[in-house]
Amino acid sequence: MSEDRKPFTIGLVGLGTVGVGVIKMLEQNADIIAQRSGRSIQIKAVSASNKSKDRGVNLSPYEWVDDGRDMAAIDDLDCIVEMVGGSEGFAKELVEKVLQSGKHVVTANKALLAEHGLKLAQIAEENNVCLMYEAAVAGGIPIIKNLREGLAGNQIDHVYGILNGTCNYILTEMRETGRNFADVLQEAQEKGYAEADPTFDVDGIDAAHKLVLLGALAFGVEPDFKNLQIEGIRNITAEDIKYADELGYRIKLLGVAHRQGENFIQTMAPCLVSKKSAIGNVEGVFNAVLIHGDFVDQTMMEGRGAGEGPTASSVVADLIDLAKGVNTPVFNVPVGTLKKAQWQGPETLEAKCYIHLHTKDDAGVLADVTTCLKDHGLSIKSVIQRGHDGAQTASIVILTHRASFMDAQNCVQSLKDKSFILQEPLLLRVEDI
Amino acid sequence: MSEDRKPFTIGLVGLGTVGVGVIKMLEQNADIIAQRSGRSIQIKAVSASNKSKDRGVNLSPYEWVDDGRDMAAIDDLDCIVEMVGGSEGFAKELVEKVLQSGKHVVTANKALLAEHGLKLAQIAEENNVCLMYEAAVAGGIPIIKNLREGLAGNQIDHVYGILNGTCNYILTEMRETGRNFADVLQEAQEKGYAEADPTFDVDGIDAAHKLVLLGALAFGVEPDFKNLQIEGIRNITAEDIKYADELGYRIKLLGVAHRQGENFIQTMAPCLVSKKSAIGNVEGVFNAVLIHGDFVDQTMMEGRGAGEGPTASSVVADLIDLAKGVNTPVFNVPVGTLKKAQWQGPETLEAKCYIHLHTKDDAGVLADVTTCLKDHGLSIKSVIQRGHDGAQTASIVILTHRASFMDAQNCVQSLKDKSFILQEPLLLRVEDI
Repeated sequence: MSEDRKPFTIGLVGLGTVGVGVIKMLEQNADIIAQRSGRSIQIKAVSASNKSKDRGVNLSPYEWVDDGRDMAAIDDLDCIVEMVGGSEGFAKELVEKVLQSGKHVVTANKALLAEHGLKLAQIAEENNVCLMYEAAVAGGIPIIKNLREGLAGNQIDHVYGILNGTCNYILTEMRETGRNFADVLQEAQEKGYAEADPTFDVDGIDAAHKLVLLGALAFGVEPDFKNLQIEGIRNITAEDIKYADELGYRIKLLGVAHRQGENFIQTMAPCLVSKKSAIGNVEGVFNAVLIHGDFVDQTMMEGRGAGEGPTASSVVADLIDLAKGVNTPVFNVPVGTLKKAQWQGPETLEAKCYIHLHTKDDAGVLADVTTCLKDHGLSIKSVIQRGHDGAQTASIVILTHRASFMDAQNCVQSLKDKSFILQEPLLLRVEDI
Repeated sequence: MSEDRKPFTIGLVGLGTVGVGVIKMLEQNADIIAQRSGRSIQIKAVSASNKSKDRGVNLSPYEWVDDGRDMAAIDDLDCIVEMVGGSEGFAKELVEKVLQSGKHVVTANKALLAEHGLKLAQIAEENNVCLMYEAAVAGGIPIIKNLREGLAGNQIDHVYGILNGTCNYILTEMRETGRNFADVLQEAQEKGYAEADPTFDVDGIDAAHKLVLLGALAFGVEPDFKNLQIEGIRNITAEDIKYADELGYRIKLLGVAHRQGENFIQTMAPCLVSKKSAIGNVEGVFNAVLIHGDFVDQTMMEGRGAGEGPTASSVVADLIDLAKGVNTPVFNVPVGTLKKAQWQGPETLEAKCYIHLHTKDDAGVLADVTTCLKDHGLSIKSVIQRGHDGAQTASIVILTHRASFMDAQNCVQSLKDKSFILQEPLLLRVEDI
């Protein structure tokens, strides 16, 4: 057992929240980790940009390496844990160099994987090593493992994900308190749930990186970040969340990856989901991924999508797998067998649609609007018209029956130019999950 | 790649719903399974009690074996899939014989594992083969894999499970329609959601078998079915479900496994859970398992807990792991390192308690009841007293503040003998998840 086998040795590059979490977990749970791995997992070397900073953990047992990329040349390391982040520059060079040196890599770097995953998978395969990234998607939820292994017998046809805790926290707070986006974002920044520059989160880029990885794994296709249309949550108002609630829905920043035969669709945008659905009830900083496969039917996992502990949990799970000798291709099948999908966007989907128009409160406006819908083949399920107090303006909120999303886009496009429309209309899909 | 490696060959014993599901999945998804396994998985031999029965699948490509136990002697089989069921007799002999012959076993047999898992794990270890049972717990949810691998770096301290779809369907129907247990059970039997003899399901035995396996895996202890107190759902009335709803709760048949230091507690009983909680919203035939670990915090998986497709999904996931050469101890660590826990029951827990008393509608009854609670140190959070129309009787429903469950049991015990109590009181725990 563990006594007989030599330790699995790692070098840790990047000592931010997650890097420190990994050190704590490997120290605190060393015994059970060794038991479950069949050998001990030992940090040998660490590296970060600032050597003297106090991080609340004792680094003196570990060799300090000034430039993390030099770890590629340290022969007695089995694996490098890359906790630096960023899709270009240092992190990319580091990962490439380490894989080329014949060592495994464990990372939480979704941007790097989403944008350069295919090339990195090739390098890993050529050097017969693993590139593991459980922590890159949905924090502590072992969703990469579930897609690669736990559901491996299934043809997956749908993946839905709430993949960014910051956005989900903001939307939940907006619903619960009725406050607007800017207000709640500021509070989230103060609480540390959102970055000083929130672009990656609230504009959907972070969630999109994760979705690209889930789609590639689910369908056996090349990851393709470039062909993903991304829409964030900046245009969602507290008013929209209230209207959605009135209609029986919650608004979530939802990643969707569909396969219809050899037709692949991926979208990242705010969507309406039933407030009675499991995914509609995933609130606050929690993430969730719902998968539909041909045999397993529907299964959903939820948990914390970020933070020191949950992310460390996923990094260490990868390390345990590697220590046990597990060897899985980066995207679960050899790079050469990944298909090149022609990804399509939301315009190819059919869905109920939510349209919010801000209009002048004039006679005949609703008639003009409904005529426009009719002309675009859209059938109305519900309408709410509500005058705004103290202003000669109104909100018209329409929920259509199931329709081509492209028809809805075209309809909203032609409504935009009408003289009675006062601001950019909002068009969202309903996802019936 | 797959071309270079010889097929992984299996024998299938038991051709009921799940056995047939496994055949369908291996045929229908043969290509992706081979890709993800790195080799093809081929059924070589099948066996069941009745050779001539039409099962809707073509068995002619496979060797028929009259007595499944004889598969142990077929040299070119890598693995036997046991889909017979039952904790004793044929299935047990089969699994023992196959492991002793140096072949892997995949099974969905929770009863066998819960009652004889330790011995079987020993046999597997001695023969250096695997005994896999993803399908034994929570159907299509890869919860065994998540506990063994995906969350392997964590010290797990709590596991909560809705582990029997029949019970959850019955409780959901009772709540939604207000009908009583017997009625809904009969309907469930007609729909095929419940067996003709529903004992294993509604008395909690099936769910208890599954809980024992989760507890053993989560805590690294020997599985211990004998020391688990089991309470089913027969005593739950539609009235109780309504009272619980009024108080903000749903009633679920809930498996609970706790670790407090070296103190282990496992219980299988109907409990109240918040209707706002994720687990409180798992409805109908769905199963769910919620796990709390020291780093990952809380994570929950839900999905279909039974049926041809979901169960086949888990069996095939095990087969793919074996075909890839994964080798995991049955309870994740070598048998010799499993601890022998002194399992305790619900009496050691602290919880809010739900007490439903059927009383005569006499003066002073509530005073007597509340005095009795006071004497047992129980503090009241809510009381509902409601007279029954047309009868001189009433229901008194009490929700206590957090208290020792043993005090609550003693209190109910002494209330039982009071002259104004008309039928067996109901005492349930609230689980604040």
